[in-house]
Amino acid sequence: MLIKAKTIQLHTAEKVQLFDLTNEVKGFLAESGVWNGMGVVSTLHTTTGMFFTEVQDALWDDVDAFLRHLVEERAGYKHNDPRFSDCDRQNAAAHLRSILLGGSLALQVENGRLVLGQFQRIVFAELDGPRPRSLRMQFMGVGAALELPEWKKKDSRQFPTNGGVQ
Amino acid sequence: MLIKAKTIQLHTAEKVQLFDLTNEVKGFLAESGVWNGMGVVSTLHTTTGMFFTEVQDALWDDVDAFLRHLVEERAGYKHNDPRFSDCDRQNAAAHLRSILLGGSLALQVENGRLVLGQFQRIVFAELDGPRPRSLRMQFMGVGAALELPEWKKKDSRQFPTNGGVQ
Amino acid sequence: MLIKAKTIQLHTAEKVQLFDLTNEVKGFLAESGVWNGMGVVSTLHTTTGMFFTEVQDALWDDVDAFLRHLVEERAGYKHNDPRFSDCDRQNAAAHLRSILLGGSLALQVENGRLVLGQFQRIVFAELDGPRPRSLRMQFMGVGAALELPEWKKKDSRQFPTNGGVQ
Repeated sequence: MLIKAKTIQLHTAEKVQLFDLTNEVKGFLAESGVWNGMGVVSTLHTTTGMFFTEVQDALWDDVDAFLRHLVEERAGYKHNDPRFSDCDRQNAAAHLRSILLGGSLALQVENGRLVLGQFQRIVFAELDGPRPRSLRMQFMGVGAALELPEWKKKDSRQFPTNGGVQ
Repeated sequence: MLIKAKTIQLHTAEKVQLFDLTNEVKGFLAESGVWNGMGVVSTLHTTTGMFFTEVQDALWDDVDAFLRHLVEERAGYKHNDPRFSDCDRQNAAAHLRSILLGGSLALQVENGRLVLGQFQRIVFAELDGPRPRSLRMQFMGVGAALELPEWKKKDSRQFPTNGGVQ
Repeated sequence: MLIKAKTIQLHTAEKVQLFDLTNEVKGFLAESGVWNGMGVVSTLHTTTGMFFTEVQDALWDDVDAFLRHLVEERAGYKHNDPRFSDCDRQNAAAHLRSILLGGSLALQVENGRLVLGQFQRIVFAELDGPRPRSLRMQFMGVGAALELPEWKKKDSRQFPTNGGVQ
């Protein structure tokens, strides 16, 4: 079984900014050698988000505007009040947006390819930038059958009920 | 190790419509032979959602009304404006609802059964129908010990710290 | 391959209450022996939520207030109306909040440690307490290489493309 992971570092430039990480994830999947299996992409921060959506400038502007509308920037948050909080970033709204968006995505891998619909992309949302940010992706599964050593290929023919791979 | 996947096709009939996919997922789990392991169910679209909830007509009407209330259907979205977008479906609200609901669910399998609470069901939400839609489910794990070939059962007795399965 | 799972029981004391489960999850990961792999933490209820966030009293008060603001407690929900529903808990708002928060988290494990950012904690939200609640966590992956039997270590040297573990 293969278990491969990689951390992505990025420097965000705006307060709120979306990034399409699909190509990075696909590129690492190819490197990983995982042919069939599962994956997880996780942000390592609490004022960011991970989700699937289409990539289009107009839609991404709508996402930004919607998040600002849904979660007010200033609403008497205790997290932004020095009487209750030692955080001086005034970023309660970013925390709340982050909770709504979620922080990790479960992925599927089939025949070496990420299982995504035609318009689905893996999007990372900076919600309290600009800052350096880290994401981690991991794939777990079996490599391509062609790359198995000879004795394993024989086993898989002998025990096909086992899925052909140990 | 077993890794099994299947795509579900469905034709939705309404603009917003919920589907209980639990029986489909359980049925495929039984077919897959995975006895212990993990699963992922993913929508392949960007104007749909996946989540856990109870199945009850009254509650599902509330979910529909709530999504319409939370994300306004028309709010000057750029994605719906031909000056900024080449999408003619006017479906920005569906995209935003989709991002809030999420697009994939991580599942657990124990002794051949999907780990779900008494009232938990796996629900797919159409948010911009009617349309043909695809979902993909995948299970990864080990088969039932009884089905292992004899030499493997011996191995599992010899090396119990390995979980009994290679 | 190791696949280990455990159910956490807890008794909530408030209508809405957040719990930091990170130490429970880390403790079970250590017990499980999984050194590299994936995990899932799932709630088994439909009026609860699971998410990542920072632990801070002020922020948690903001989360509580925000959920109450975002989803009105009483808004003519059919689920709360005996004409449409046989549920007498009047908990439609808790169901809707639960759908927004999500019910399962995909996790990564690296070298025996849960992959989490500095401020990320695994949080369980009671949304319709007080009640007894159950969560289930599962880890799947490979154990530490040092614990492999000798013949496996030899195999891993012979077939390094296989990740060193069968």
